[in-house]
Amino acid sequence: MKALVLFSGGVDSTTCLAIAVDKYGADEVLALSVSYGQKHSREIESARKIAKYYGVAHRELDLARIFEGSNCSLLTGSTEDIPKESYSEQLKTTDGAPVSTYVPFRNGLFLASAASIALSHGCTEIYYGAHSDDAAGNAYPDCSAEFNDSINRAIYTGSGSVLTVNAPFIGMNKAQVVAMGLKLGVPYEMTWSCYEGGERPCGECGTCRDRAAAFAANGIADPALKGE
Amino acid sequence: MKALVLFSGGVDSTTCLAIAVDKYGADEVLALSVSYGQKHSREIESARKIAKYYGVAHRELDLARIFEGSNCSLLTGSTEDIPKESYSEQLKTTDGAPVSTYVPFRNGLFLASAASIALSHGCTEIYYGAHSDDAAGNAYPDCSAEFNDSINRAIYTGSGSVLTVNAPFIGMNKAQVVAMGLKLGVPYEMTWSCYEGGERPCGECGTCRDRAAAFAANGIADPALKGE
Repeated sequence: MKALVLFSGGVDSTTCLAIAVDKYGADEVLALSVSYGQKHSREIESARKIAKYYGVAHRELDLARIFEGSNCSLLTGSTEDIPKESYSEQLKTTDGAPVSTYVPFRNGLFLASAASIALSHGCTEIYYGAHSDDAAGNAYPDCSAEFNDSINRAIYTGSGSVLTVNAPFIGMNKAQVVAMGLKLGVPYEMTWSCYEGGERPCGECGTCRDRAAAFAANGIADPALKGE
Repeated sequence: MKALVLFSGGVDSTTCLAIAVDKYGADEVLALSVSYGQKHSREIESARKIAKYYGVAHRELDLARIFEGSNCSLLTGSTEDIPKESYSEQLKTTDGAPVSTYVPFRNGLFLASAASIALSHGCTEIYYGAHSDDAAGNAYPDCSAEFNDSINRAIYTGSGSVLTVNAPFIGMNKAQVVAMGLKLGVPYEMTWSCYEGGERPCGECGTCRDRAAAFAANGIADPALKGE
């Protein structure tokens, strides 16, 4: 194996997967989906289908126990509702603190897990779909440029200078990610982003709104809303 | 909870636990033991007993699945034997590469998991027993000063400047750690370091040798070798 892709089955990580497969070929790519106790499992079903579509090896890792003490609104057992606002709207109410959908140090945990698994399989590269919209203020501090720089250096030095983190979208917004994915023929109708777990995306939660806007900026409707 | 201690039940992390309890009191300390598919579970038994001795909350986390693809000699299913050499002897044969007892990015994974759990429980500090002997050459790259600096910064920034990593022994060798622990009355007879899983420490593996030397430097025999 050459590359591990952190793969949720959403727009960004599916575009990452397309890039990795384009570069290395499907046989050299390992897609890793991590569950963390989300309220729904619709996302992982999309991830399985897309991994099969691309013909890549797919591993699923369940880290839900780690967040047992957390009351993050995305998690099973939380007393908080998932907010019906875009990221930027959520930000206005949090006064610089992490928002209720911040899963504690999730991205750090995901990347560290990815590093251990990547090294265990001989990979030299982790693909990671972070982009500039993610780093909205301090709402998700584990999406900031400073965090990314630090964790990337930790992974490079901590692996004995073997493993690098490739975040190809770090200077892009989500609309630019979609533009790149459309060129690569990414099957966006198979992806899933919605925080809710219904049959169809809710169209109202923060991720649904941000996603719709990214497709609109490319002159098309969200392909996932066209039905399966 | 105020502090989470990464707690293996060995000499260094037990001394860390003693420091955290001394500072915050037992009620504010959470001890976290992570298993990763080690060939034996003797270590975790020691950790349980010591956590009970100190009266702290104790969580156990099993991350063995993450290392399923690895052939590290410490892991169940590995085809490699655990080397009967001290760290410095192992180093001579590896030509600067990680040794066979390097568990891929283990410390990064442990610290990231600790960060997620610490934040989930409202802790603001992680105690971590790394010391200067650990950073032997590039044998364990996830023990180097550069790695520690990077991961600590990743945890601080990725938590929204809430959580710090406290590695009180980072400038000390193991003999100095033991000297500090003896002052705090650490029950070293309850600790376990041996890579093998017998009833008594083997006295021959790298950790047994390094541990015996640390006690000898303090003018005493390893208390764990006196029997239980």
